[in-house]
Amino acid sequence: MSKDNLKIGFVGTGVMGRSMVKNLLKAGYFVSVTNRTKASAEELFPLGARWVDSVAELAGLSDVVITIVGYPKDVEEVYLSEEGLISNAKSGSVLIDMTTSSPFLAKRIALEGKSKGIDILDAPVSGGDVGAKNGTLVIMVGGEEEVFNKVKPIFEAMGKNIILHGPAGAGQYTKMSNQITIAAGMVGVCEAIAYAQKAGLDPNRVLDSIGGGAAGSWSLSNLGPRMIAGHFEPGFYVKHFIKDMNIALESAKEMGLMTPGLELAKSLYEQLADDGEENSGTHALYKLYMK
Amino acid sequence: MSKDNLKIGFVGTGVMGRSMVKNLLKAGYFVSVTNRTKASAEELFPLGARWVDSVAELAGLSDVVITIVGYPKDVEEVYLSEEGLISNAKSGSVLIDMTTSSPFLAKRIALEGKSKGIDILDAPVSGGDVGAKNGTLVIMVGGEEEVFNKVKPIFEAMGKNIILHGPAGAGQYTKMSNQITIAAGMVGVCEAIAYAQKAGLDPNRVLDSIGGGAAGSWSLSNLGPRMIAGHFEPGFYVKHFIKDMNIALESAKEMGLMTPGLELAKSLYEQLADDGEENSGTHALYKLYMK
Repeated sequence: MSKDNLKIGFVGTGVMGRSMVKNLLKAGYFVSVTNRTKASAEELFPLGARWVDSVAELAGLSDVVITIVGYPKDVEEVYLSEEGLISNAKSGSVLIDMTTSSPFLAKRIALEGKSKGIDILDAPVSGGDVGAKNGTLVIMVGGEEEVFNKVKPIFEAMGKNIILHGPAGAGQYTKMSNQITIAAGMVGVCEAIAYAQKAGLDPNRVLDSIGGGAAGSWSLSNLGPRMIAGHFEPGFYVKHFIKDMNIALESAKEMGLMTPGLELAKSLYEQLADDGEENSGTHALYKLYMK
Repeated sequence: MSKDNLKIGFVGTGVMGRSMVKNLLKAGYFVSVTNRTKASAEELFPLGARWVDSVAELAGLSDVVITIVGYPKDVEEVYLSEEGLISNAKSGSVLIDMTTSSPFLAKRIALEGKSKGIDILDAPVSGGDVGAKNGTLVIMVGGEEEVFNKVKPIFEAMGKNIILHGPAGAGQYTKMSNQITIAAGMVGVCEAIAYAQKAGLDPNRVLDSIGGGAAGSWSLSNLGPRMIAGHFEPGFYVKHFIKDMNIALESAKEMGLMTPGLELAKSLYEQLADDGEENSGTHALYKLYMK
């Protein structure tokens, strides 16, 4: 798709979405945006983004629509409601959902799209607010290869590690693998640091011993020091992680896969949310062990 | 301690111990060895190691004795029995246990030693057979600082990252933090790769997406590909990991620390051992998910 005439629509100007729109604008794309609350999009207008009042209107004027919203129910509404993308998108347009959402829903949306001559990709990301800001997101894509190749330059404006993992849903399945790894991994990191603390060790020195070997992980090196220092700002919100774990559990159940580590992590995070920590970073799980 | 007159005794010439003795010999130390079975020590004799028939005899002729044996009960026997090190070591000698063993036992041995004028360090390692071979072990030490400084050059012949973590037991506590991190972490890695497989993804491509970000870990990058390829040779034995998790659980209980992730991992590994996998590598846990 030639950049010159291409019209991109963008739904969802939260922390992630705003940075992604900025990178699209920086790359020279023409971008229209919409969001539940206009206020969160306002900083994008001086940079060249155009405001559109509704998802339906945005769909009608865009060649490619990118969405990054909150929960699967939001994805469902944005794509499948009467006022949503599929009912109002131009035939031949491409819709890309970058929300972390249900693989099952992604497949359903892709089928609905196909029946209307609209191509759909699921393309959730990892790399957080920093990755979104720097244009270094990991983008995990599900859908048809031809469609993927057509919009790849758009992904390249927002991310670095961009892989097509298979048909519709494959991006979401890959993102769930990511979250499943993190879930039990975080449990291990919290227990290990709490153990070091309670044993009377200097936990930062313990990290110096264990961080570079077989126990080493991104969570241990990046979140361990924050746990020890008592800094629990997100990062990634507890409430969003619980959402992701619910999606992962549901899809694992569909596959007949046991996931006791994921189940344990989810139940611990739910206890943490009950303690009023749902807006803390995921590493606040540590607090549960130090109560 | 001057290298020239120093006599090192070494108890335990298994895979780890043999490599460690070789590095001590390479560094110019005079080393006597003993082991339950002489056969496993034989390759060390042409390199300059001297065989001694018993722990008691070894204790009597050494300035520093290093031990790396199997289980806490072996440590107990080697240190605390009548024919053991403490009853037979020279006053002023230093005994260093590099077995992964119980922190509580390490404290008990240190007290026994002190009462006889013998200095004790607990100094378990990580880095496995490769680290032992290359002299790049991580060495986690508990004991008195003066004693640690005295024998540090000996540690430097065997390892690279050598840290004193506190008084007797602190080395073992640190090693347990390492194992606790790995325990739940491995559960997460296995569940994530099994999920990717069952979702019909190419799990190696999934690793390309998730290995470099927030889900990244040594286990995921190093053991994930072996799980996918179906190679389950140890590495680190399931049976030894279960031993370590039992020590960690027992000591966590003493501290009043909940460790549900560790408990879950231990119960899964026990199922795996029941399936006849106790001599497989720890990453064989993956098999439990793919049954």
